[in-house]
Order: sequence, then structure tokens, then C-alpha cells
Amino acid sequence: MPGNKLEVLDSIFYPRSVAVIGVTESSDRVGYNLLQSLIYSGFQGKIYPIHPRLESLQGLPVYRSLEEVPGPVDVAVIGVNQFATVEVVEQCGKKGVKGVICVAGGFREMGPAGKALEERLIAVARQYNMEVVGPNTLGLINTRANLNATFYPLRLPSGKVSFVSQSGGVGLTILHKAMDEGLGVNKWVGVGNRSTLELSDYLEYLARDDSTAVIGVFVEGTDDARRLVQVAGEVARRKPVVFYKVGRSDTVNLAAVTHTGSMAGSYQMYRQILQQFGLLVVENALEMMAACKALAMAPIPRGNGVGVVTHTAGPSIVLLDEVNLRGGVFPPFAESTMDRIKEVLGQNPPVVLKNPLDAAGQGMQAAAIGRLVEAVLDDPRIDLLVAIYCLHLNWRCPTPELLAAQKRSGKPVVALYISTQEQVREEREVLHSRDIPVYITPEEAAWGVSALLHYALQRGGISR
Amino acid sequence: MPGNKLEVLDSIFYPRSVAVIGVTESSDRVGYNLLQSLIYSGFQGKIYPIHPRLESLQGLPVYRSLEEVPGPVDVAVIGVNQFATVEVVEQCGKKGVKGVICVAGGFREMGPAGKALEERLIAVARQYNMEVVGPNTLGLINTRANLNATFYPLRLPSGKVSFVSQSGGVGLTILHKAMDEGLGVNKWVGVGNRSTLELSDYLEYLARDDSTAVIGVFVEGTDDARRLVQVAGEVARRKPVVFYKVGRSDTVNLAAVTHTGSMAGSYQMYRQILQQFGLLVVENALEMMAACKALAMAPIPRGNGVGVVTHTAGPSIVLLDEVNLRGGVFPPFAESTMDRIKEVLGQNPPVVLKNPLDAAGQGMQAAAIGRLVEAVLDDPRIDLLVAIYCLHLNWRCPTPELLAAQKRSGKPVVALYISTQEQVREEREVLHSRDIPVYITPEEAAWGVSALLHYALQRGGISR
Repeated sequence: MPGNKLEVLDSIFYPRSVAVIGVTESSDRVGYNLLQSLIYSGFQGKIYPIHPRLESLQGLPVYRSLEEVPGPVDVAVIGVNQFATVEVVEQCGKKGVKGVICVAGGFREMGPAGKALEERLIAVARQYNMEVVGPNTLGLINTRANLNATFYPLRLPSGKVSFVSQSGGVGLTILHKAMDEGLGVNKWVGVGNRSTLELSDYLEYLARDDSTAVIGVFVEGTDDARRLVQVAGEVARRKPVVFYKVGRSDTVNLAAVTHTGSMAGSYQMYRQILQQFGLLVVENALEMMAACKALAMAPIPRGNGVGVVTHTAGPSIVLLDEVNLRGGVFPPFAESTMDRIKEVLGQNPPVVLKNPLDAAGQGMQAAAIGRLVEAVLDDPRIDLLVAIYCLHLNWRCPTPELLAAQKRSGKPVVALYISTQEQVREEREVLHSRDIPVYITPEEAAWGVSALLHYALQRGGISR
Repeated sequence: MPGNKLEVLDSIFYPRSVAVIGVTESSDRVGYNLLQSLIYSGFQGKIYPIHPRLESLQGLPVYRSLEEVPGPVDVAVIGVNQFATVEVVEQCGKKGVKGVICVAGGFREMGPAGKALEERLIAVARQYNMEVVGPNTLGLINTRANLNATFYPLRLPSGKVSFVSQSGGVGLTILHKAMDEGLGVNKWVGVGNRSTLELSDYLEYLARDDSTAVIGVFVEGTDDARRLVQVAGEVARRKPVVFYKVGRSDTVNLAAVTHTGSMAGSYQMYRQILQQFGLLVVENALEMMAACKALAMAPIPRGNGVGVVTHTAGPSIVLLDEVNLRGGVFPPFAESTMDRIKEVLGQNPPVVLKNPLDAAGQGMQAAAIGRLVEAVLDDPRIDLLVAIYCLHLNWRCPTPELLAAQKRSGKPVVALYISTQEQVREEREVLHSRDIPVYITPEEAAWGVSALLHYALQRGGISR
């Protein structure tokens, strides 16, 4: 990617000033919400609403045109229709705007006339050395700059995971799921029609972005699949990339064409190539979230050996099943580990001593869990530990014990706290802040664990 | 199943009196929590805590032994260890108790000595014509009787779905997920070692239980797979059954043996047979919940034709993909439907007119959504409608429109409201109370829709 594109993308994600074109007084309209999103997210740069007649909007002075804006404008967010969009982009070029975010649909995805219009849009952008986010997009978000340049006013907790989504709606699903899961988001972009900025361009930018630790990608289809996969493969050597490609059924390929105007391509082909390039492929938005959470919070393990400490066997069996299908192994414990477990549980413990370790009754006591978790983490064949605990009205969670054990061993610890999202919130906040991802279902925990194991093996970790 | 077993099961689920054996003053202990669960869930029958020395516990008078209890005891919940359990069950027999819930592990799953102990337990139960829930179980719940006979004090909203789980922990996962999803639960049982009551016995009981509309089953493995599947198949002709069988990987079969002492059997064999018997098979707890929710709330459609109205294409493509893989179809709209859609969107709408219908900008307005949804529901090839909407700070949800359209057409409507669980709660409550299941991710919506289509075709519905 040319250096210029990277620089422009940096201006787009970290603008000093944003103009909003198409603002109105009606909160029904996209333009109103583009402006409100910027204010609501606490953007600290300059905001210039543009409208030919209004004096002020949402407490900000309004400018009659881009020309009248006193200082430079890094980014213009454009909420007018597709025809007006092209005109406005030309004005942006004249003003020296670096990047435009074009929300309107009605371009390439609408057939020949739309395609011609999009070609004009591209030509104008090229003429002025601008980059276009979209068109036909929800916009983009950068929590590091308190920037929400979409028409969905949201307040997102900041974090280390960035998302590139070919669908605004699926991207929104992921954002909401992240909020539910207590996972902070770094950057987010709905790529839309990718008129000048390809999925791979955003990936290359995020690869170089120090505040992004993990990248999630949602893809419907692209004409440029080869380059996308190659770039993603390169990026994945620097930081984990999680790929969600829709289109396992045949019908969906047709549907995707009329959405973003690009062929979806065979799912199996995509999947195989993605895996060849070392990328982690997930099958739904829930698995995407579970994988990104683990990769953003826990360190990458040294190998694919998983140890489990639980007081309830069923969830550990579900976890074992899911992780096993994805290449994880559950090594038997070393003799010395068994001895330490017996010490905790008594000489004739009423449980079968194996991995997963079901400590039954004793496994409900936080102190016992702590000692078992330490013993298992010390086992040389165990690279990652999952602690399973069902939240209980009268019993204390083993949160301090897990924190201490993880700190002592340095190995990744994943917590499966069976609970509701609401009841787990407080414990989760503590654990999340100290590198322990928390899940409330065994399947999601397994998807998170499997993501860590995938990148362990990709990084040359030990296959046990 | 003999009539006696049914009658006893009825006494177990709807006891007039419950004795709790093994109660203590320490809230750490299982016995304490068995008692608290009964009180916490608001059980209105008689509760008799039994302890040799204590005078009162948690505000209730304590009896020194079962013998001293003045009236009859329908059910005894037993929280003592495995050895004492057998003794207590004998006392229960003498007292005329109908059913015992045995929490302790340490039986069949622990090898020959445990197996011998469990055989004694069974012999005692047979001698006195009692049935045993468990042993090695969390217990059972019946929200219709405000009965929580587990050691997890919970307050569950009541509803139409009942669960039979071979794992307490997975069963708890499902209960918590149900709370998160706003889905009411009817009955719930952790079957444990199934010493006298098999999975199929509970299924037969729930098949006859009028307040149960849908049954979810989680299975690790059973010696009696043939009978289980046959019974489940018969039950599924009366009410929908959703099956979650763990064990797609080989390793897990071994793990299941040491948990509940039964062979898991080949997953593929299970799956094929379950499907032959017309049962819906799901692959994880999230799909289980999504399927049960749809089946509990929406009517079964007349065929497998799905219509979608959305303002964001991506989620509809994900939905299409998932539903398509599970046998659903998305028929093209009739000419008359197209005409009505054009009327709503204008003569030259900036969208491609097809199913799924992406109404883009106009699809954000509740009134327009309402008219589009009505048009699509009137289409003779559409048996079920999915309305997709992203919750927005400034825009009203199309909740009243969906309610009106569903009422008018009588066809099932499913809402995909992209949001967090918290933000969607209010709208969801309204929709759930009026037969419209609400999901927040496209995949879960698709799993719910697919469950409805499965039972549509099972009931002889039209395959479009």
C-alpha cells in the first residue's frame, strides 16, 4: 500500500477537524445523527456542521458551505443522497479535505447507472488525492479519538480489538455483542462499496496501528479475494486476525451481489485459502466475539495443551468437545500434579483424577479452586487453563484466586463463569482488567480457547 | 411408562410437602442451600427441614427425624453424602415418601463400589415404590409450583419451555441463558445417574404436562439410546422437542463415561437417528435457547417460505445463509406484493426489489416497516416473516407495527432487533408477551426461524 494511503487513513481515523454535510434539524434524518454521533461520542476535534440556511445545530455554529469553514478540514462526513454526494465530494476536493465518508447507497450495487455514478465519485476522489470510506456505508468509529462518524450515536468502551466489516448491520451486531460481553473496541469501519479503500487497505492500516491488538473481519465477498487473503495472512503474522466469511449456502452468494455489488465466491475455497494463510476462520458473530475477546485479553499460550478445573462436569465436556474439534488437546496431568491435587482433595477424593478435573463438591470452594488451579498451571504439559464455576447466591467466586494463579504462572487463564450477563458483570470487570477473559457459556469459552490455541500453533507453539 | 411412574412424577413436580435432609446452619453447604432454594423460589407447600439437634433454620421449625414430621411427605430432598443417602432413602420409604431427590455423587460414576451402592439405592426405592431423581444431580425446578429443589437458589420467570438435562452445569447454563433472553421456563430437571428415572420417563411426563409447550433435552450419553429416541420421536409428534447431544469429537465419549457412567455412543449415529425420528437437533446451548424461544412463542408456520424485511442487508444475508443451510427457502415475492412494496417505497425505489427486502433508508421508519411487513405477510408463498431493525437512539422501534401485522395475518413473525440485551429489554417484553420472539444477532434469529420451519415440515407443512 502506498504511504500516501496510510497517511490519509491516519487522518481519517484521527482527524483534527470533521465537517458534516447534510445536517438537518430533524432527528429522523441521517445527517442529524451523523452530527449527534460525533458530539455524543465526545469527539474533541473541531466539528463543522454545514447547511445553507441554519444558524446553529445541536449547540454548534453552522457554516453555509465548506468554503466558509475557517480552518482546514481533515474529514467530511456526507449524509446527502448519491447524486448530491458526488457534487459534495468535488467541493471537498477543492477545500483540501483528505478523506470523505459517504453514507448514501445507490451506487455500484444498483446496476449500470449506479456504477457510472460511482466511477465519477472515484474519478473526483483521485483528482484531489482523497480517499473514500464507502459509499453505501454506516461510517467508521475510533474510540481512541472519541470519534463516532456513523449515524448511530453510541458510547463504546475503548479496548484493543478493531473490526473491519463489509456490512454495517453485521458490524453493528458485533459492536452490540461487544458491549454485552464487556469487550472494549478500538476501531471499527463499515467498508461499504470499497470504491477507493479495499478491505485489505484497512487491514494494512490496522496492522500498523499500535493500539489495535486483534482484528476481526466480516466479509460477504470481494472481487479482490486473492489480495485480501494475502494481506490478511501477512497481517496475521503480526497480530491475530479473525475472519468471518458468510456464504456457506449457495443462495447467499446471489444475495451478496446485489448488496455490495461483488461476487461472493465459493465458501469452501475461501475457507481453505484463509486457513492456508494461517488465519482463524469463525462461523458466526458469536464465535467472532468469543475469539476476539480471548485474543485481546489473554496472552498467546506456548502450546495447545489445555487444563480444566471445574466443579460441574457437563460444561467441561462441552468445552472439551468444541476445543477438540478445533485442534486442542487435554493432556493427562503429570504425577506431581496428581499428587498436589490429592493433597487438596484428600487422599481418597470422591472424584476421578483426570483432565478435565471435576473436583465436584470441593470445587465450589474458592480456596480449593485456587490451589487446584495453581497445581494444574504448574504442570509442564498445560499451556492454558480454563476454570469453570457456576455463580451462586451464597458462594464467593474464585476471582482473587484466579488472578493470583494467573499472575504467578504467566500462562493464560480463561474463566467460564456460568451466570447471566448481568450477574457476572462485576466479577468480569475485575477479571477482564487483569487479562482473564470471562465467558458465560461453555461453547463461547471453547471458541475463545480455540482462538488462542490457533495462534499458539501459528506462532510455532508446541503441538502436544 | 407405567401409570404409577407418571403419578409419582406428578407428585415430585407438584409436591404438597417437601422434607429437606442434610440441612445445616452453614450457607457454604449444599443442605443449607437446598432449603434456601425452596424458600427463595416461594414454594407454598409445607417445608420440613430435618436435623437431629437444631430447633429452627431460616425461620422454619426443624424436625429431629422424618418420623417426627406430623403429616405426609411427598418429596424428600437429600443433601447428605452417598453412604448416608441410602440410609435416608430407607427412612423415606418407611415414612411413605413418594419421590426422593438425591444430590450426592459417588455412585455408579465412581466404579464398582459406587455401582454396588447405587444398586442398593435402587433396591430400597423399588421396595417402597419410590422414584429417585438422580443421584448425582443438581435437582429439579417447577416454576408452576414455585418449586426450586436444587441447591442453587434462583428466581426464574415462568414460561412454556421445559428442560431435561443430563448435566446440572449445562442445565444451569441454559437456565441463565433463558434469563438473559427473557424466556420463561416451566420445568427443569438434572437427571443425574438415572437410577430409576430415565431421560425418556421425564420426556413422557412432560409430553402429558399441559403447561409445557416445548421440551429441550441435553444428552451426554445413555445406555438406553434406542428407547430415548423412540420416546422422543413420539413426544415430538405432540409438542416440539429440541435435542442437544454433546460428543462430536472422539475424546468426549471417554470423558462422558466417567461423568455419568454411561457410554456416549457415536454422535453421527445419534444425530441421524434423531433426525429420522423427526427431532430437531442443535449443536450448542445458544442454538438450543434460540430454537426453544421461537417454538415457545411463535405459532408453527404453514410451510417453509420465509420473507424478510430489513433496512440493513448484511444481517439478512447471514440469516439467509443459516436458514438456507437448514432447509428454509426465501421465495420471490408475488407481483401483487411487489406492487404494494413499490407503493410504500415510491415508483423508483433506490433498492433492489427482492426477498430479503432491503428497504434501506425507508426501512428505518417504523410506519414504512409496518406497511412493508403487512405486504410481505399477505404474500401467499410467505409462511413466516423476519423483521430486522437496528435499535437507534433517536428512532422508534416498529414494535406496534409488528404486533398489528402479526395479529392481522396470524402468520409467525420473528424480530431481529440488533441491540444489546439491556437496551432491547423493554421492547422485547412487549413483543414476547404477544407471540413475537426477539433476537439480537442474525445467527440466533436464524436458529429460531429454522426450528419453526423444521416443525412446520414435520407437521406436514408445505415445502416451497
